[in-house]
Amino acid sequence: MDKWTLLIDTVDQKGLIHKVSGVLFNDNLNVIKTNEFVDHDNNRFFMRSEIEGDVHEDKILDELKEIIPNATVKLTPVKKKEIVVLVTKESHAIGDMLIKHEFGELNATIKAVIGNHDVLQPLVEKFNLPFHYITHEGKSREDHEKEIREVIDSYNPEYVVLAKYMRILTPKFIENLENKIINIHHSFLPAFIGANPYKQAYERGVKIIGATSHFVNNDLDEGPIIYQSITPVDHTYSWQDMMSKGKDVEKNVLTSALKLVFNDQVFVHGNKTIIL
Amino acid sequence: MDKWTLLIDTVDQKGLIHKVSGVLFNDNLNVIKTNEFVDHDNNRFFMRSEIEGDVHEDKILDELKEIIPNATVKLTPVKKKEIVVLVTKESHAIGDMLIKHEFGELNATIKAVIGNHDVLQPLVEKFNLPFHYITHEGKSREDHEKEIREVIDSYNPEYVVLAKYMRILTPKFIENLENKIINIHHSFLPAFIGANPYKQAYERGVKIIGATSHFVNNDLDEGPIIYQSITPVDHTYSWQDMMSKGKDVEKNVLTSALKLVFNDQVFVHGNKTIIL
Amino acid sequence: MDKWTLLIDTVDQKGLIHKVSGVLFNDNLNVIKTNEFVDHDNNRFFMRSEIEGDVHEDKILDELKEIIPNATVKLTPVKKKEIVVLVTKESHAIGDMLIKHEFGELNATIKAVIGNHDVLQPLVEKFNLPFHYITHEGKSREDHEKEIREVIDSYNPEYVVLAKYMRILTPKFIENLENKIINIHHSFLPAFIGANPYKQAYERGVKIIGATSHFVNNDLDEGPIIYQSITPVDHTYSWQDMMSKGKDVEKNVLTSALKLVFNDQVFVHGNKTIIL
Amino acid sequence: MDKWTLLIDTVDQKGLIHKVSGVLFNDNLNVIKTNEFVDHDNNRFFMRSEIEGDVHEDKILDELKEIIPNATVKLTPVKKKEIVVLVTKESHAIGDMLIKHEFGELNATIKAVIGNHDVLQPLVEKFNLPFHYITHEGKSREDHEKEIREVIDSYNPEYVVLAKYMRILTPKFIENLENKIINIHHSFLPAFIGANPYKQAYERGVKIIGATSHFVNNDLDEGPIIYQSITPVDHTYSWQDMMSKGKDVEKNVLTSALKLVFNDQVFVHGNKTIIL
Repeated sequence: MDKWTLLIDTVDQKGLIHKVSGVLFNDNLNVIKTNEFVDHDNNRFFMRSEIEGDVHEDKILDELKEIIPNATVKLTPVKKKEIVVLVTKESHAIGDMLIKHEFGELNATIKAVIGNHDVLQPLVEKFNLPFHYITHEGKSREDHEKEIREVIDSYNPEYVVLAKYMRILTPKFIENLENKIINIHHSFLPAFIGANPYKQAYERGVKIIGATSHFVNNDLDEGPIIYQSITPVDHTYSWQDMMSKGKDVEKNVLTSALKLVFNDQVFVHGNKTIIL
Repeated sequence: MDKWTLLIDTVDQKGLIHKVSGVLFNDNLNVIKTNEFVDHDNNRFFMRSEIEGDVHEDKILDELKEIIPNATVKLTPVKKKEIVVLVTKESHAIGDMLIKHEFGELNATIKAVIGNHDVLQPLVEKFNLPFHYITHEGKSREDHEKEIREVIDSYNPEYVVLAKYMRILTPKFIENLENKIINIHHSFLPAFIGANPYKQAYERGVKIIGATSHFVNNDLDEGPIIYQSITPVDHTYSWQDMMSKGKDVEKNVLTSALKLVFNDQVFVHGNKTIIL
Repeated sequence: MDKWTLLIDTVDQKGLIHKVSGVLFNDNLNVIKTNEFVDHDNNRFFMRSEIEGDVHEDKILDELKEIIPNATVKLTPVKKKEIVVLVTKESHAIGDMLIKHEFGELNATIKAVIGNHDVLQPLVEKFNLPFHYITHEGKSREDHEKEIREVIDSYNPEYVVLAKYMRILTPKFIENLENKIINIHHSFLPAFIGANPYKQAYERGVKIIGATSHFVNNDLDEGPIIYQSITPVDHTYSWQDMMSKGKDVEKNVLTSALKLVFNDQVFVHGNKTIIL
Repeated sequence: MDKWTLLIDTVDQKGLIHKVSGVLFNDNLNVIKTNEFVDHDNNRFFMRSEIEGDVHEDKILDELKEIIPNATVKLTPVKKKEIVVLVTKESHAIGDMLIKHEFGELNATIKAVIGNHDVLQPLVEKFNLPFHYITHEGKSREDHEKEIREVIDSYNPEYVVLAKYMRILTPKFIENLENKIINIHHSFLPAFIGANPYKQAYERGVKIIGATSHFVNNDLDEGPIIYQSITPVDHTYSWQDMMSKGKDVEKNVLTSALKLVFNDQVFVHGNKTIIL
């Protein structure tokens, strides 16, 4: 028996739950889990159902189209997402992903890893995964990004994960990958946007540092936030100590966000996420 | 326009959401918020809806009875709960409740406070609330409890809050108050059950202490847990330091739990809570 | 036997601990607790000792002056600080302080509360403390501040606590009160500086909100941070919900910071705190 | 210039800091950092100094012996500890250690990994580390442990790490390894001692789960606690979900504890740790 996830995002109106659940009931499907959220400020309805049974995809979509013609509906079989990962030099985020991937705990298949440095190539290849070393040196930003996009596109991934990829992306790069690129930012956004947030945090004398995983859009560090977490620090921490302690937070925040995204739990509306 | 909360707790079956939401839709009610949870291990369905509109209580209950005859259904207008609070000597939990109560932030009306000591009488009376001093001295536990129950019952409260009431309750006391008595326990249950948990925590050398708010049942410290929180400690803490730091956790845990309960968000099933 | 706290802040050099502890040893004093911190980046040494015994203040200061002539030395008997509190309309921060104060848990004596609104007057007076209502209406900022400063100065307090005082202070007001004014800011600084941080947090879609207690200097929200804490939120929170949940964090952060300050544990160096 | 760590654990008496710091000062050593703690309940003094300079080990130890003859003194050069790791089947704890080890972030050298199953052999060997598969099948507990101890002893490690080694150890095994074996326990001790703590946590309906890293002594799960951390859960979590979420906490708690131990920051006194 197949398992599917149904995501609905539409203008709110009376009776939506009744109508949508009616389609599932009449098709004799098992609803394992349903969550809804109504954003009253924006008059928007979000619903996520995990269903089980003899799913006739087109039939369900047709029936839903009839009752909520303007809704965004996503009906996907429960299976691992295919992803490509971008890295630079730091090992902690990709390392955690590789270990989880190796033991079936990532809920995704890593098709390839791309690095603008080759430091992490030996690590990735230990796990028998392709590593593409695409240096940015001697190239314009546009040419470098074009090269990377070609490799990404060759794998046709469902998501691109920036596991501490330390280069700014242009709008061109993001084209057709809206809400498909997940980044881990090493600060508790919106604090310390920009370069070296740990140094900024040290200089400001904060007592807590954090990390933020978010979808990437055109404004750097401004995309919809998926997950955040923090850890306490004090006056004894140099910014290098903060960076070192922050790494564990970063990797945990990233893999927590990935779990939500790969499990089809995350809606994006405007610049925010709704997580059901 | 009235606001009501609908709680349903029943054996799971296909189409429950569809059927229940149909009743609300057909009665032309506005569903502001709906949450469900299916406990597949116990084949149990829980649903909570906030509804708005021209609510005919009996009609809705009849219609629901028809489709889910064996369900436990609770339909309550959204309004402040009436409560009685029991205290001993410590001021932090009752203090926080009194401040919130005074400024309309408790979502409850404190009808009276009962103390087995009179230490807190002046504080409670500052806020023009009745304080009943019922000493346990020279009385059997049964007689003491009987006296307290009589005062409680005279107010006919919807909930009884033990805001650091430091006496063990007998099953007799709890009779007819099942899942109506909310306690704050000064440890991260089930660790350190029993007397002086901070001393126990100190002696065990834990690095985190906590507090637990739970419904009271016949087994002391064993009732369904509503809310828990923690705070870090280290080797420099004496058990008195732990107690002092723990007080802030205790009061926050208690008022967090009360918010959930008074907002009709808490189901009890077996020895667990489901919070929607 | 008296208890004193000794604070030393000076340029680092070899042997400082040996020399300073030598003074205490030779004067036959009991050192209950000592903590040091060397800020190697700024070549600065901080030391805090709790001492007990027959303390001859001038003698110790003279002896210390001899060995560390340029140090900032503070030798204070352990006793409650005298404070004045400023408020506007919100009850949670002052409420928590009043309860703790009433039961001897604040480590300070509240000499008076000043409000630019009179909403909190009845609460403060319940606890038999003077409340000065000094409206800002119809006054220039300068005149209003002058009036408040006169009342503050009449009490000659050791610290001024802004318990959700919602007015910007001018540099003139702060004069002679450097590192003596403690504020609670309702965001996880430096995120969401400025007006209505909860609304800003809501609009940014963050998954965690927080509060920050800091000393007030000339740049609003920019003073040395003493304590911070956070609480998770999600897409279901309106900004009013965030504000409501944030209140408990705010009051806890403020009273945690006050405990450190009133216990003479906080050094300020540049724009940072060192907490020993 | 060498860096050393000096640890002193002795009966408290007046002037200890002065005397000890005098030895370091007179030997013209640079004290980078010093921390002390006096356990007044047990009249015990603990001190940790990081020192730099021309360290003559024997001279310093002799000089210290003269002033504190009965103290436990440990003077160790700052360098990576040599360790042996024991595992069973779970990959998360050893995986995190291997990634950190590979990139120089563990502060230890893994000499070998021993497993009572061979599941993790391929992972460990990816990192070119020896894996010893020593099955317990068909062997008495004593014989199995003897075999393992022989392999451990052949590496003469400074610490043994149980990275989710799921076998109970006998007192015989622990002999001569007191405070040298570090375990990660998958519960917030002392809650849920014994088998399958996640199932116990699920059945008790707790709202927070945690993990504990501790030294191993004769009483299972009863050794001195080094580090603990927690993560919230709710009614939607099955015990398998708790286990899955708990894995990230476990690995973080273990590597946090290891950092403290390998950095010579942990004293053990009685059944507690003092962390300086």
